[in-house]
Order: sequence, then structure tokens, then C-alpha cells
Amino acid sequence: MRIVVTGASGFVGRLLVRELLRGRSFSGVPISRLVLVDRVAPPDEEPTADALAQVVTGDLVDRLAEVFAEPVDVVFHLAAAVSAECEADFDLGMRVNVDATRALLDAARTQSATGGPTVRVVFTSSIAVYGRPAAGDLSQPVSETTLPTPRSSYGTQKLVCEHLIADMSRRGYVDGRVVRLMTVAVRPGRPNAAASGFVSAIIREPLAGRPAVCPVAPELTLAVASPRTTVQALLCVAEAGHGDGPGRIRGATPVNVPALTVSVADMLDTLRRLAGPQTADLVTFSPDPFVESVVASWPADFDNTRGAHLGLRPDASFEAVVRDYAADHPEALADRPRLRQLG
Amino acid sequence: MRIVVTGASGFVGRLLVRELLRGRSFSGVPISRLVLVDRVAPPDEEPTADALAQVVTGDLVDRLAEVFAEPVDVVFHLAAAVSAECEADFDLGMRVNVDATRALLDAARTQSATGGPTVRVVFTSSIAVYGRPAAGDLSQPVSETTLPTPRSSYGTQKLVCEHLIADMSRRGYVDGRVVRLMTVAVRPGRPNAAASGFVSAIIREPLAGRPAVCPVAPELTLAVASPRTTVQALLCVAEAGHGDGPGRIRGATPVNVPALTVSVADMLDTLRRLAGPQTADLVTFSPDPFVESVVASWPADFDNTRGAHLGLRPDASFEAVVRDYAADHPEALADRPRLRQLG
Repeated sequence: MRIVVTGASGFVGRLLVRELLRGRSFSGVPISRLVLVDRVAPPDEEPTADALAQVVTGDLVDRLAEVFAEPVDVVFHLAAAVSAECEADFDLGMRVNVDATRALLDAARTQSATGGPTVRVVFTSSIAVYGRPAAGDLSQPVSETTLPTPRSSYGTQKLVCEHLIADMSRRGYVDGRVVRLMTVAVRPGRPNAAASGFVSAIIREPLAGRPAVCPVAPELTLAVASPRTTVQALLCVAEAGHGDGPGRIRGATPVNVPALTVSVADMLDTLRRLAGPQTADLVTFSPDPFVESVVASWPADFDNTRGAHLGLRPDASFEAVVRDYAADHPEALADRPRLRQLG
Repeated sequence: MRIVVTGASGFVGRLLVRELLRGRSFSGVPISRLVLVDRVAPPDEEPTADALAQVVTGDLVDRLAEVFAEPVDVVFHLAAAVSAECEADFDLGMRVNVDATRALLDAARTQSATGGPTVRVVFTSSIAVYGRPAAGDLSQPVSETTLPTPRSSYGTQKLVCEHLIADMSRRGYVDGRVVRLMTVAVRPGRPNAAASGFVSAIIREPLAGRPAVCPVAPELTLAVASPRTTVQALLCVAEAGHGDGPGRIRGATPVNVPALTVSVADMLDTLRRLAGPQTADLVTFSPDPFVESVVASWPADFDNTRGAHLGLRPDASFEAVVRDYAADHPEALADRPRLRQLG
């Protein structure tokens, strides 16, 4: 079982790699090789040192020959240009999110057409495929049967790839799986260029004793999933068998990661309750109309039925999300007694 | 007003060109040039001889520089590989339906980015973006708000282009318009490779005194629009102003050509009634599972509200569709007295 993770040095990629190396098997079959592809080398020592790991550093399109030099069984395709990048640079998004995905799919198709295994392609799509419904429709939660009308180039590019993967799966070229990620929070480390990056920053930075700026109004609601929930969903959809029964998946129909709906105000209330006013007061508001317009175009209320059918549940509460973060990243907490008890 | 028609030598393209040359204006502005682009030269003499016409013969992608050598105001993008071709040859469909459309959109974007006019791009999409709903949902007519889940590569490719056009319109790169064509019948001339070609053949061939084979069961229902209704819809959506009022259109949201729902049995009953049993008996049934699988994946029952908002109506009856054909193509009717009265 040779598994490839693209975008392996990204945040979700690193967590997924860690989880795969911990389990050392996929659908009950031992992993023989885990190929970590990214433009930049893995920042963690652990995966690189593992005997299962093969590190491929460079542009995905340029390294496909190397990646497919030996048969590939599964690809987790996480490499992407993020939302704000794609809104700022249309061509970049088309190249990275559409053309590179097509090249990957073509390589997978060539493998099966030449007698190799059919590649299970797990594609990370996004909540950004949806435009937030018009005001009158807000009572209607969004599900996988909701008409996607993206309001961003990023969402459009993800949706385009979803359709190509569905068609190539229908034709038997690949065994495609599509997982639509919610806003993943709380992310450790430095902010990335995702428009939703502030959701992590307004929790992570104060917990580290640093100020943070919130670019949207406190009333804004978001659909959030913790890193743990997100990686669990990726693995669950990837390993699911085809079919209609519980825990099974139909073709390459998309699955939304189960979402927790929470407002910015609720997030900050949770921070205040858990970490105290001194910490919560490190967050100030400074509206950024660009960020607000992108993030406000994503729906926040979700019907999580399809995920539940696969055994997936949203995070229990935003408090649980924050506690998970604190438990996973004790090194990122300011040295205050109250914070050290959080995890 | 310089207008470009791609696929100008195709059936719908020729009708559209004839209509534009008849009116000689677009949205009230005189047409200064009508550029006819196609891989093959226009089969009709009339448009080529017209002083307004400029004929560009060759592969669209290769001729874009020539097409955009002078400012383009409107493009009717009709050039495409048809449904059965795309199902038989995946790469052909991706190249012709996706890559060539992207090249055209990029040329239009470059024009406006360099100070030229924003191109109004009228894209002919298709009913094939929809998969026929599951049996339980058949009572629910399909509209533009129905979730498209294509069951063919052709439908997937059209849907991908719809999303790219919507995003590029949102960004202001082009002024995109998307019209989803129904099965266009009755087509004159020889059958093309469209899976729905038989719908025209089972009327056209008997009317010409020739036998025809119907590859699907008589119970199969289809969503049909006559050539006249189809071209009228293209022009209406192309000329509509942006906005919410009657006759106006919102961004690049798709518009389905208003559809007449009719079964194959009803079509043949109409033929029998209008042209007599001798003519209708020229049709024999010989099931073709490939054609049936493609055509049966398209929905047949439509909610035509959005088209009606623009002032568009479906054909009044299948009898009207057949009479239109007979009136427009008297040369294609067998020399029987009854047929000559049809149109």
C-alpha cells in the first residue's frame, strides 16, 4: 500500500501524515511507503526519519513522474493555493488548483490504463464551493445536496475539480473521494493566506500572550471543524467502501466535514471563560472588508447527515475545540497557570 | 458592434448567423462585423456573401489571435464536441469543450485587461449538466436551482465551463451568459454524433421518405426545443440587461431553454397523425443501450419559470415543432401531397 500525500508540509497534511504513520495501515492493509510531496521540505523531523516515508520536494506537476515511478494506491491531494491567494491572483489559483489537479488525475489514469492499480484519489474540497444563501434562505441549513454557487475563485476551482473527479470516477479512471473542509481551527504556528486564518489567530495568539486583530464583525458565524475532526473525516471517507449502507460512500459524491456553527462573539466568550479576561482582551476588532466579503460568502449552518451516515460527528463545542488545541500544543501557551490547565 | 460566432458552421450556429444577418443589429446597435469561426467553412453561400461576414476557418484555439485582432463585443460560443463523441473520447472532450473555452475566455479577459471592451460571452451549455433524478424524485421538475450531477463527460465539461464563466464574470473579466440547450429537434441534414440525434432522425427521415431506426424505447421522455425556440433563447439571453426585473438577467446564472416534454411514442403519434401511417411506419425500433443510457440520464420535466421571466416560452406542442420543420425545410419533404401541406 503506497500512499501519497500532496501538500504534506501544510498544516492538515502534517497532521494526516502523523496519523498515517501512527496507524501504519490503510483499510487494514499495511502501508509500505508514504510519499510526502510538497514545494517545501517537511518542517517536522519525525516523518522524515520514519522508514516508511519518502520525501519528494518540488512543484507537484514537475514531480509526478517520480511520484508515479512506483504504483500508487492512494493519493490524499491536499496541495492547493488558498482562498485569499486565489482571489488576489486568478492565474495562480487556476494553475495550482485546477491544472495541477488535472495533471495528477491524468497521471493516476495513465497508471490504471497501463495495468496498474486504480488510484483512490482523496480530494480536499472546501466549504467555499457554496455561496452563502440569500438572506431569505438562511433558515435552510446547507447539505451536500445544496446547489453550490461559489462566490470566490478558490471555491470555483475546487468545484471544477470535484466535477472532473466525479466524471473520471464514473469512467473508472480513478476511485475519487471528495471531502469538503470547513474552516479548520485552531491552527498552530503562523497565519497562512487563507481568508479564514483569523479564526485561528484570535484564539492562538491570545493563548500565546500575543495580541490579535479580528477583521470581521463579532456577529459573523462560521462553520468550524477542529484539526482532529478534519483529519478523522479525511481518513474515514478515504477508507470507506462503496455502497449505500452505513459507513459506505456512493461514488465520488462529496462529503462535508461535520461542522460546528459558532459566531466570532461566541468564540471570544469561550476564550474569556477558559483563559480569563486578560487573555481575551488581547483581541481587538479592525474590520477588513476584503476578508469579511470572502468569509461572509460561505454558509455557516450545515446539515451534517451525510457525515453522520459515515459515523462522523462535529466537534462537541467550541470549548472542546480550544481544549484540543491546548492539549495538542502546550508549547504554544503563554506561561500562565490558568492556561496550562486548559488541555 | 463586432460579433463572433464559434461553431458557426454547425446547425444552431448557421441558424443564429442567419438571424443576426437578418436583424443586422444587437441590442439596438448595428452590427459592424459578424465573424464566423468554425473548423469547416460555412456550407451556406448566403452568410459568406454578406458584406458583414468575416469567415475564419480553422481550430478555434489556433485562430484566436485573428479573431481578437480587432475588438470583440460579443461571442456566441457554440463550438463543442458533442455528447457521444465526449463519452467515446474523454481527451477530445476535455480539449475541445474545456481547454478551448478557457483559451477563448483568456483572450476575452486579455482584451478587457488591455483597455478593450468587456466581451459578452454567450455560452451554450446543455441539459446534460443534469443527471436524471433518482426514480423517487421524478415528480419534481428540474429548474436552474436543481443540483447538477452530470452523468456524462459532455455534461461535466459544460458544467465546468459554466462555473469558470460565472467566476470570470464575477471578477469582471467577461460579461458571461449561460444558456442550457435542450434536445434541439427537428434538425435538418445528416445526423451528427450527439446521442440525441435520433430525436430528429425519427421525424426528418420518414418525412423525406427514408427509413429511420429509433434506438430507445417509446416510453422514453425527452425535453425538446425547436431550432427557432433555441435561437430565440440564445438571442434573448445575450441581449438581456443585468438586473432582477422582467427580461433581465442576474450575472452569469444559467438559463434553461424552455422545454417541451414529450415521449418518443407521442412524437411518432404526431408524425402518424400529420403525415400518415405510410410515413410513420418507416420508423423501426432497435435498442442501443449506449444511446439509451446517455439520453435517459438527462431529465425530461422542466420548470420553465426563469425562461418565462425573460419572456421565453416552450414550443406549443410537438405538432408545432414538426410543422415548423416542414415550413423551414420544404426541400427535405418527400414528394407526397399530404406532406407538402404540412408547413
